[in-house]
Amino acid sequence: MSIHNVAIIGLGLLGGSIGLAIRERAPDIVTTGYDADADVRKRANERGLANHIAETAAEAVCKADLVILCVPVGAMGKAAEEIADALPDNAIISDVGSSKESVAIALANALPGRTIIPAHPVAGTEQSGPDAGFPSLFAERWCILTPPEGADEQAVATLAEFWEKLGSKIEIMDAQHHDLVLAVTSHIPHLIAYTIVGTASDLEEVTRGEVIKYSAGGFRDFTRIAASDPVMWRDVFLNNKTAVLEMLGRFTEDLTALQRAIRSGDGETLHELFSRTRAIRRSIIEQGQDDERPDFGREH
Amino acid sequence: MSIHNVAIIGLGLLGGSIGLAIRERAPDIVTTGYDADADVRKRANERGLANHIAETAAEAVCKADLVILCVPVGAMGKAAEEIADALPDNAIISDVGSSKESVAIALANALPGRTIIPAHPVAGTEQSGPDAGFPSLFAERWCILTPPEGADEQAVATLAEFWEKLGSKIEIMDAQHHDLVLAVTSHIPHLIAYTIVGTASDLEEVTRGEVIKYSAGGFRDFTRIAASDPVMWRDVFLNNKTAVLEMLGRFTEDLTALQRAIRSGDGETLHELFSRTRAIRRSIIEQGQDDERPDFGREH
Repeated sequence: MSIHNVAIIGLGLLGGSIGLAIRERAPDIVTTGYDADADVRKRANERGLANHIAETAAEAVCKADLVILCVPVGAMGKAAEEIADALPDNAIISDVGSSKESVAIALANALPGRTIIPAHPVAGTEQSGPDAGFPSLFAERWCILTPPEGADEQAVATLAEFWEKLGSKIEIMDAQHHDLVLAVTSHIPHLIAYTIVGTASDLEEVTRGEVIKYSAGGFRDFTRIAASDPVMWRDVFLNNKTAVLEMLGRFTEDLTALQRAIRSGDGETLHELFSRTRAIRRSIIEQGQDDERPDFGREH
Repeated sequence: MSIHNVAIIGLGLLGGSIGLAIRERAPDIVTTGYDADADVRKRANERGLANHIAETAAEAVCKADLVILCVPVGAMGKAAEEIADALPDNAIISDVGSSKESVAIALANALPGRTIIPAHPVAGTEQSGPDAGFPSLFAERWCILTPPEGADEQAVATLAEFWEKLGSKIEIMDAQHHDLVLAVTSHIPHLIAYTIVGTASDLEEVTRGEVIKYSAGGFRDFTRIAASDPVMWRDVFLNNKTAVLEMLGRFTEDLTALQRAIRSGDGETLHELFSRTRAIRRSIIEQGQDDERPDFGREH
């Protein structure tokens, strides 16, 4: 079992990058793309995000042996309904959503009896839309597959092989654990970045101009993440509510403890934490998940 | 009045970068460097961070017309005491500390009657020590001068001109306002980055290995900031307590409001904030305070 024909539904950063990565790394695979927005379809055609751009979702999937839904997690159910009647019998249906339990339910409801293997390539940038994608987005990044209980093992292996061709490393876990892990490595970081950027924009004593001028003191790192796609992220928080609220509770507890240390002048507690957090960055760099150049290699 | 002889006390990221920037951009100025750590002095000599490396702080400053203290803000008072008796009469004393009200008090107490013009170049990376500095650190970055009331205007102008030579843009404000502005653009971002990295390291349900593997989902951006110098940052929080606690209160209020929006499924509130925060990043890039390449231009 191997993949010859991939349908990509949704041609933003992720969908576009999949199309470009296939063209570069697996050119034998034929791609058909579709996006609900006609302007995005036009731009996708110009950039060559897929070999063919279809005018309807049904047309895009009718010959596919792998369909990848690349729409916000809140739109997965509707996207699945649109393709239900046109899907070939043996097609694998997958996605790239950042929360997996809710997506698994939405897809199972819309496509009963189908081979559904949800997936999440942990990769992205702050940009979105049909101009944002690039072929190396998935290189050396982890792609997490969350097959439901009793999933076809051959289909899981086929999907894993597909993502490996695009440069990804594969991990398999259950959807619930995925949602907890990503709550802490992705969703809470986005939530607090959005929050501090919002807080800084709304102050009376400090002007917006001052916030911008002095952003090099640390704030600007947060604005990158807080420039991510609003609809995608709204859907993530609404669809991974339990894990996000759980991890947010832990974060708030820890922040309150530091607040107390600052108020009471407890330098030892501060120093102990600030020393400990360096180690984790070293590991991230050693494992190729970030750039070791100072300041992310920003030009100086 | 102009600067011919600069003493740099403390040869880490900031002190070293000042020395290297002078060598590149103002080679007529003679620099003398000192660091309390003999290993740092040795390395500073090898890298040429200053024209001369002195064996004592007093020796370093005895011919200076500008002394710049580049030590953690909690060590400013002690560093000032060490140079008090050796300072030439007309020397300007300045610093690079990230909090300014407490530094102004420490310097005024240690050096009564002297010309003290505190300063804060808003620039840095996550690295520290004598190998971290580079000559373009201050280019296009803002340097904030916080002259005390009644400060010698000529000395302020001379210091401003000096920083402009190193590539900085100059702003003058009072120390209290500085501390409030930097609390939001630098200190709170560091505090929440340290917190979330600590939270992620201490979870039982999610392993450290998982946090590292899936850090590309957003978390890794926070680890950069949380790799900053622990002593420097401990001192910042202890010395800018009032403004940090005030701004932390605002952040926590806003975070609680978002928590409520997630719990109640209020997508509109989330979407409204997530859309608004994009604008501030655009302004930061337009004003040359960050890199517009996606993902900070990390290599893909």
